[in-house]
Parts: sequence; structure tokens; C-alpha cells
Amino acid sequence: MKRIGILTSGGDAPGMNAAVRAVTKTAIHHGLGVVGIRYGFAGLVAGDFVTLTAENIDHMINAGGTFLYSARYPEFAQKEVQEKGVEQLKKHDIDTVIVIGGDGSYHGALALTRLGINSIGLPGTIDNDIPYTEYTIGLDTACNTAMQAIDRIRDTASSHHRVFVVNVMGRDCGDIAMRVGLASGADAIVVPERQFDIKEIAERLKRGFKDGKDNGIIILAEGVMNAADFRTELLKYGDFDCRANIIGHMQRGGSPTVLDRINATKMGNYAVKLLLDGKGGLAVGMENGQLETHDILDLFDEKHASEESLIDINEEMTK
Amino acid sequence: MKRIGILTSGGDAPGMNAAVRAVTKTAIHHGLGVVGIRYGFAGLVAGDFVTLTAENIDHMINAGGTFLYSARYPEFAQKEVQEKGVEQLKKHDIDTVIVIGGDGSYHGALALTRLGINSIGLPGTIDNDIPYTEYTIGLDTACNTAMQAIDRIRDTASSHHRVFVVNVMGRDCGDIAMRVGLASGADAIVVPERQFDIKEIAERLKRGFKDGKDNGIIILAEGVMNAADFRTELLKYGDFDCRANIIGHMQRGGSPTVLDRINATKMGNYAVKLLLDGKGGLAVGMENGQLETHDILDLFDEKHASEESLIDINEEMTK
Amino acid sequence: MKRIGILTSGGDAPGMNAAVRAVTKTAIHHGLGVVGIRYGFAGLVAGDFVTLTAENIDHMINAGGTFLYSARYPEFAQKEVQEKGVEQLKKHDIDTVIVIGGDGSYHGALALTRLGINSIGLPGTIDNDIPYTEYTIGLDTACNTAMQAIDRIRDTASSHHRVFVVNVMGRDCGDIAMRVGLASGADAIVVPERQFDIKEIAERLKRGFKDGKDNGIIILAEGVMNAADFRTELLKYGDFDCRANIIGHMQRGGSPTVLDRINATKMGNYAVKLLLDGKGGLAVGMENGQLETHDILDLFDEKHASEESLIDINEEMTK
Amino acid sequence: MKRIGILTSGGDAPGMNAAVRAVTKTAIHHGLGVVGIRYGFAGLVAGDFVTLTAENIDHMINAGGTFLYSARYPEFAQKEVQEKGVEQLKKHDIDTVIVIGGDGSYHGALALTRLGINSIGLPGTIDNDIPYTEYTIGLDTACNTAMQAIDRIRDTASSHHRVFVVNVMGRDCGDIAMRVGLASGADAIVVPERQFDIKEIAERLKRGFKDGKDNGIIILAEGVMNAADFRTELLKYGDFDCRANIIGHMQRGGSPTVLDRINATKMGNYAVKLLLDGKGGLAVGMENGQLETHDILDLFDEKHASEESLIDINEEMTK
Repeated sequence: MKRIGILTSGGDAPGMNAAVRAVTKTAIHHGLGVVGIRYGFAGLVAGDFVTLTAENIDHMINAGGTFLYSARYPEFAQKEVQEKGVEQLKKHDIDTVIVIGGDGSYHGALALTRLGINSIGLPGTIDNDIPYTEYTIGLDTACNTAMQAIDRIRDTASSHHRVFVVNVMGRDCGDIAMRVGLASGADAIVVPERQFDIKEIAERLKRGFKDGKDNGIIILAEGVMNAADFRTELLKYGDFDCRANIIGHMQRGGSPTVLDRINATKMGNYAVKLLLDGKGGLAVGMENGQLETHDILDLFDEKHASEESLIDINEEMTK
Repeated sequence: MKRIGILTSGGDAPGMNAAVRAVTKTAIHHGLGVVGIRYGFAGLVAGDFVTLTAENIDHMINAGGTFLYSARYPEFAQKEVQEKGVEQLKKHDIDTVIVIGGDGSYHGALALTRLGINSIGLPGTIDNDIPYTEYTIGLDTACNTAMQAIDRIRDTASSHHRVFVVNVMGRDCGDIAMRVGLASGADAIVVPERQFDIKEIAERLKRGFKDGKDNGIIILAEGVMNAADFRTELLKYGDFDCRANIIGHMQRGGSPTVLDRINATKMGNYAVKLLLDGKGGLAVGMENGQLETHDILDLFDEKHASEESLIDINEEMTK
Repeated sequence: MKRIGILTSGGDAPGMNAAVRAVTKTAIHHGLGVVGIRYGFAGLVAGDFVTLTAENIDHMINAGGTFLYSARYPEFAQKEVQEKGVEQLKKHDIDTVIVIGGDGSYHGALALTRLGINSIGLPGTIDNDIPYTEYTIGLDTACNTAMQAIDRIRDTASSHHRVFVVNVMGRDCGDIAMRVGLASGADAIVVPERQFDIKEIAERLKRGFKDGKDNGIIILAEGVMNAADFRTELLKYGDFDCRANIIGHMQRGGSPTVLDRINATKMGNYAVKLLLDGKGGLAVGMENGQLETHDILDLFDEKHASEESLIDINEEMTK
Repeated sequence: MKRIGILTSGGDAPGMNAAVRAVTKTAIHHGLGVVGIRYGFAGLVAGDFVTLTAENIDHMINAGGTFLYSARYPEFAQKEVQEKGVEQLKKHDIDTVIVIGGDGSYHGALALTRLGINSIGLPGTIDNDIPYTEYTIGLDTACNTAMQAIDRIRDTASSHHRVFVVNVMGRDCGDIAMRVGLASGADAIVVPERQFDIKEIAERLKRGFKDGKDNGIIILAEGVMNAADFRTELLKYGDFDCRANIIGHMQRGGSPTVLDRINATKMGNYAVKLLLDGKGGLAVGMENGQLETHDILDLFDEKHASEESLIDINEEMTK
């Protein structure tokens, strides 16, 4: 084993750069070289490579986004495109690869492994929607960003005795909404994993105002419904002042939190060790706070298990 | 002069609480009492009053929103409603009033003055759309909140070589957009005060990517156009990856910045002194960094003058 | 069981208010009353009680510090003082107590339980120095606050090719230093749990500058040594520009992070359920990400186990 | 006029990079080249130059510190060293220079102008201690950083009914202390410009606690006294719980605020235009919110005039 190639794929997430830094520093410690592959699998096939050193990635621990860039590249599903990628890697003496991204990008890591390039997948996405892991790199930063935005929104909600319906990210997975909702003291959290009763939510809000609350906050995963549509529905059951708000893409960016930097660093460090052990085709995850691995193949049939007890606690406190 | 009544009106703005605190502390220093009037002019007429002391407003300097609450109350345009308000004030020994809000709320201050209650208006709105003042309480916080959101958005824009069209607040006044745009290094700033050429902007963005830029940011005052519509128009002239984003209500809330706290404090302090001097019917403003006053009556025919040179500088640096 | 008394004790920590809020909202849901005891055990004995309602604690989820106040009160070690406290509780129909604080304050919870008032201890301290728990309420916020300060310090370190020795909190426990150090990309992390070689650290820093690094950061738990003294020692082995810095008390305050708010909420919710189950004399902790309990008595002989692998990873990446 | 050289000198300040970016973008617009001179005047003499383009400085608007680095270089006071610098500039076709730094660094700008290289000084220091300007680049960010730290400290002060004596930066100039003190609602602001009565301050604090305040904050410019020494003095006149805290070097770093980015951008833009007009030997400043210039020579005999009215307002509100 001589050189590790590293790429980021899918949507960017805070902590990706910290993971790249950890891979680089750990690899150098073990006498290995590290090559940054720019623009994900597209750059792998195009040979868009840049040598990483302990010094040029030194400032990356607190940078948001991914300095290696990311790009969509569905073409990598094709065998001949994958083989072209392997050729590029071999030409540059790269014999192992670490892929940071969503589970979609793990397909590429598995394909490379099957073609003789041991590859490891690290969970890099704010959405926490990857099976067999309770945590993905970027989740904590995204949640804190959304929560801080909602703290601001609550100021104006309270000033005007107003309800806000707030869309946070999450297509099929309500994890951001659950965390942000509980942390924001939301009156209701609406996620894809659970049914909801919009009339009951309206009653809850009315009861709150009647009991002396001066604001109402509903956290709504964007995969369930658009905030504006939810507002329209809600106003059928109550005549309070109500606004819709979308937190939007700011949730993706920003300097990572302590937790995201630490976990990204642990995972990057761990991935290098797996490669040194001759492992490949594995996805790194976290279970009960501990790092572990699963065969990438096992992930494709599975669905991420959300910590739904957060919803239960919130319901207990708001009903 | 015995007691000052103070109320907040219109949309809430960070720094309103700091202004209320300054009024209270200054008034107490001069041997005067201070009464908080809750829910704006509605509370004035309803007699929703709360005594303010140096201690119970002590923690308010860094609180967002308005703890005195705000409310719409168009009924205060009617003479008989105003007289009911004056009655309430007299019943509670309140002989002067300070109103913090937009220029709409200054009408109320003028009406009270004409009915014998000397009243002063302080510019409290994030929008900076009040004539004869270059600054309104809350502007700096709102701009910093929006800019920090855009810093995050730029992370993800850069990671994907993407353009973002971002709506910031500002119906008729582009001041937030101008400040945030220049401070964010935007490729284009689009405001109500200036015509814009969407094709030229698309060309500018394409030229940027060609020259090696990895992102594009357009700051768009929401009074001009919705970000989604602008995006649709823009994509007629370029085929770059482009997303629309609305910063939204979070711009209104949050703990105020140094500048907003200092200016709110100066203005609150100044307003008490104007009342002590027997003045009324005046609006406090800022011109060339100095506090000054204008007759409220003079404001109604005037339009706020934006610092359009910010646009000129931005154009010079992006074309 | 009728009413729960709740108090905060020891140094304040961000998330204490969120825990009080969770206790209150959960208790109300189960038909119980909640009484806030001000100034810790001193207030318990003095009968300084305030009724908590779902509405008056609603805004507390994001407030730093403890609105119930905290106070030193060594007198509570005396049996007759404890009995006076129990008398006060009985007089106010309070039959159970939740104590949020460090393990010192758990003594009081145990004493109350032995006198017939079932009491539960929640780990509330930024220091993470309580046995049988990997997490204490406030830890994550304190770490993020320190890390953000160090991000700022690194800017000026880099601008001047300078080394900073930075004291973070932690008397006997290096957990804050370990987390902040790894998350800050520190060149060295110095904690009470590990021996250190100041000459080796100096060599490491010199090697860094020689290899192209433009700054050096050493994170030093304050229990090990004062930053200024460490600097003096360090300069014996190198002639780089070096400054000492103490992050200080700001680490204790501020609005809590998502993780601290969620964990505080989970723990407050859980403590009420333990009391409903007739439990007392227990300390709530977290192990492998799951809530669990230990007899308070068991804690006194034990020492907190730090996640020392963070140090190992950092050493691997910096040597 | 062909190429502008730009350097940063003295202590780094947030917004320096934004100013460099503005100079670069404006110069390019006017068909000029821009050369970054690294490590201040030391790099000028050593010829440590790097070409700046619109793209490589694009991301610099929000970066703290100075990416051009800064360094002490007292040797530049010598005529022959200055001439060596001019030689280097001429060799690289640089015929004008912009210096961003404190008034110490303006000596160098004046020397270069006298040797035929028109040079302009921009006020870049957090300390606001330059004559003939009410504002220096970095001031607003430093004040906001300090104020946010103090907001956190107030949380813990309130939780324990404690007084904090907090050192903020400022050797001979109390501007940071005045702004931060007023914005933090400090009980006392102690600056080099004013005498203070430590006994009277102790009385004020005691009166505050007696009247129901739950904390005390004293903002102390570090040029006056060390916080620990002040605390010792203060405790001679009162027996309250009191701690000393130093905000320290974090005040220098961090991403600049809206105000610092806008002013840095305006000043960078303006400096290029002054050079285009054939001007040299001038320092750019701000007076009543407007950009203006002074002969550098005039500055050396002058002292910066602080906005001492901030102190008066604070005294009025705290006594």
C-alpha cells in the first residue's frame, strides 16, 4: 500500500474537510502518501488529482464545504467508466480510496473495491439518512445552524404572538427535524416517519396562547410538506397570526461544530487503519457512540433507523 | 414632567429592548418614572401598562425582539381612539411618550403630541427605510445575520460550483441588500432603487466561472422580485447550476450587535433629554454619524436616501 | 407523589435551564406540580421557592446560566440542616427533589433520599468530571465556545507565525481540553491524565514551522499548569514567537448547543419518570449514548473515565 | 502607473483581507496589476511578492487575520533599507504601494512616497488609536467578539450573583472598552482617557445588588490596569464575589462584521483611486461617517480623539 486517494461526493457537509485532514495526517504518520481527488468520481475518471500534505490541509479543520469539490456523476455506474477510473488511479500509484459522502456514493467505493482498489466509505451528509449509523458527518453543525436560526425566529414570533411553520432539511429522514425541534422547544415536530394530525396541532397552539405562551413554533421536515402549504392547512383550524419560513441551504455550510470535527477526525483516522489492515468495501458508521463498520453491500437494502424517542419526549412535553 | 410611557410598534427589531433600557435608566437618573406600554398603541388605549425599574430591565440589553410586544392597531388613526389613549395616560400620570418603531408609528407620536402629550419617535426597524436618517435600530444586526447566512451558503455554492440567488429583506428600500451584498462579495446586488439587466448579470457570472471563480452569489431585495422567479429568468441566459434561497424572518431576531446596542442606547438617552427640554413631535435620526431630530411632520413627504455608492463600488469590483 | 422540587447547585452550566424546563413540562403532563428552589441547597433550607408553570419556563430552553441561581452551601453536610430542609419541603407539599449539578451536589440528593424525600441527581457541569457518565450537561456548549475562541486565535497566530498556549477549563479532568484540542487541530493537548514532554512539544512546533505550518496551538487544561508558566518553560526549548491565553469564564455561559439542549431535555424527562417509579438516591448518566442510572453512593469512590483515545489520535496526527 | 503593491503591517485585524480584496478588484477594473507583498516591510525588502488576481482573492472577504502575513521590521526606519525596498519594487514593476496597518506602519508609506513610490496608508488595527479617524478596520469585529464573550460571562455572573472585572484590549486608547462597555450594559467602564474612583465603583456595585441586580460587570481597558489587580483593589471596598477575566487575543481574529467588511472595501477602493489621481503620502480616515484623507506627516503629532460621550452616557445610566 502506497498512496490513498480521497474524494468527497454528493451534497457537501461541514466536517468533510476535517475528515480529509485526518486521513492525510494519519496516512503521513504511517508513511503513506495522500492524493486529493477533486470533483468526486468525475475527477477520479478525469485524473483531477492534487497531492495533500500535512501543511496544505492544516487550515482545513474549520472550513465549511469541501475544498476537494463535489459533483454529480451518474456515469460512474457503468463498468467501463469505473475501469477508466481504476486506470487513472494506477497511473498515479494510488492503490486505495476513501470516499466521503452519502450512501449513493458508496456504490462507487464498492465498485472500486471489486476492481482491486480497496475502498472505504465515510458517512458525509447532513441528512443522517444512512443505514447502520446513528450519525453522519455534518449532522450536528446543520442542526445547530437551524436551531440558531429558529432562536432568532422565536424572538420575532414572541414579539408578535405569532406562529411560525419552519421547514428544515430532510427528505425521507426526519432526524434534523427531530433534533432541532426538541432543541428548539417546538410545539410540534412533523417528520416523514410519523403521521400527524394538523387539527390537533392547531388545537395545541391555541391552548398554548390561551395558557400564556407568546409564540408557536412548528418544525417541519421538508420531505413531508412545504411550510407554506402546511400553514394554509393549519389556518383552517385556527385564526392565529402564522408565517411560513424555510431555513434552506445555509444548513449545509459553515464551520463545523466540535462534535462534527471530532467525529470526522475519528472516522478519517479509522478509515486509514482499515485500509492498512487490508480491508475494503466497508462503510464506517457509529453505533451507541462507537465506530464500527458494515459491508457496503448490506446497506443497500436497509433503511436508517431514526431516534424516534425524541418525538415521543416532545409529544409528552407539549400535549 | 413625571412619568414617561414607552412603547414599541410595527415589526420588531434587535435593539428595541436596549433602547427601552436606556430610556428607563436615563429617566430614573433624572428622577422620572418609566412605564412600559405593552402591545404598542393597542396597549396604550387598553391601559396595558407595566412599571419599569433599573433592575427589571437590566437583562434586556442583549435580548432580541421586543419584550413590550408589538401589535398592529390601525384604529389609532381615529381621533376618538387617540383621546381614549390620552385619557389612559393621564389616569396613570404619564405625561410624555417615546415610540420606537417605523415611520408609520410616528403618526401616533405626532397625534399624542398634538393632544398635549409630548412624544418622541425613535427609528426602530431593520429596514432602514425612514427619511432623514441614515440608520435605524436593528439594521446592523439584520445585516450581520443575513451576511453570516450567506457565508454559509457560499460554502455550499463553492463546493458545487453553483450560483445562489438570495432574497434578503427590503420592500421599497435596498439598504439591507446593498450592505449585505457588498459585505458578502456578491457578484450582483439587485435593489428597488436601481434598474438591473438580468442578461448582463448572467454574463458576469459565466465570465466569473470561466476566470476561475467557484461560486456565484446574487443578493436580491425581496421588494424587487422573488428569488425563485429571478432564478428562472437568469437561467434563460446561462446554464450554470443555480438555486434560490430566502433568508426570511430570522433577519428580524437575535441578540443585537455592538452598533445596534450603542445606537439604541444613545437614542434612548437622547429622547429622554428632548422630553426634559419640553420637546415633542420630533423624530430622532442619525446624519453623518451624529444624532439629530426632525419634525415628524416633515418625514411624511420625504423618502429615505440610500447610500447608493455601495452599489457603485460593487459594480466597479464585479464588472 | 404530588410536587417535585428542583434546584441547581455548583457551577452553572449551559443546559441547566433546559433541564429544568423538561422536568417542569414532563411533570405537568403527568399531573404533578413543580417548584423551583432558588440558590441551591441554601434556598431549600431557607424556603426560597417559586412555582414553575409550562408558560413561565417556556423561554428557558435557550437561556444560558441557571435562572434558579446557584450558591455554595457547605452547611448542608450537617444532619440538622438537612432536616430543616426536609421540613421546608414538607411544609410546601414537595415530596421529591431533582438536583442538577456536579457530584458534590449529589451528596445532598442522597441525604434527602435517606430522610424520605426521593431525590435524583442530574449531571450538570461543563467539566465532565462525574464518574459513570461520559457526558455532563454543558460540556458540548463549553467545548464549542472554547473552540470558536481558538479558531479566532488561530487567525492571529497564523498572521504572525506565532505559537499560542491556551488554557481551557478542567481541574482534574482533561475532557474539555481533549475535545477542544482535537477539534482545533492542536499541535499538542496537555491534560492531567497524561504525562507530557515539554521539550518534545517544542521540537514538534519547530518541525511544524520548518515544514511550512504558519501557526502553533497548544491546548492546556488549567489543572495542569497556567498558560503563562507553560509558555516560559516552552521557550527554553525554542525561540519562536509565543503567547499565553486563558479562555476563562466565558466557557461557562452562553446559549446551549443542540446536543446540550437535547441531552438536558432527555435527562430532565427521565428523572421525572424515575421519581414516578418510586426511585430515589440515583444519579442519571450516559453510557454509550444511552441514559442509565447508578446509586449515588457508588459514585463517591469512583473516578470519571476520560475518552483518552482522543489524545492518542491527536498524537498520531501531530508527531 | 502599472502595478500596485499591497502589504499589511503591525497587528492583524479582521477586515485586512477584505481591504486587500477591494484593492485588487478595483485595480483590475482600472487595468492595473496588483502584487501582494508578504510579511509587511520585511517582505518588501526581501522581495517576497505574490501576484493577486480577482479569483485568488475571491474567498478572502470573510477570512480573519491577514493572508499576506505581518511581521515586525524596525530596520525599515533606515534609509538604506528603504532604498533596497524601492529597488525591489522597481525590479517588479511596482510603482505604487498601499499599506494597511497602524500609524506606525505609515512611517514606511511616507518613506516610500518620498523615494518616488506613491503610497497610501489604510487604518488597519482593532485598537482605533490612529489620529484623524473615528474608525479603524477591525474595530467593529473586535468589539462584537468581546461583547459576545461578555454576554456569556454575564450568564455565569448572574447565576452566582457575582462581579466580573473584564480586561479588553486597548493600551492607550479606551475605544474598545467604551464601546464594549456601553453595549454590554457595564456597571463601570475604566479607560486611560478618564480618571476613576475605585471606591465609588464598589459602592455602585453594592447598591446594584441591594436594589435587586444579580450581577456586576466592569470593563477595563488593559492599558489602565490588569483585571486581577483591579479586582484586588475593588475587594478592599466591598465583600461581593468577584472574578477577573481577560478576553485576550481572540479579539484580534475571526471573520469580520458587515461594518468592517464594508469599510475595508470602501477604503481599499478609495485608496486605488487616490493613487490613480497621482496622490501619495496620504492616510485614509473616516470623519462623521465619510472617507477623507490627511497628510501622513500631520498624524505624527496628533492623538486620536475618542468618543468620550459614550462614557458620559454610561455614567448617567449607572450612577
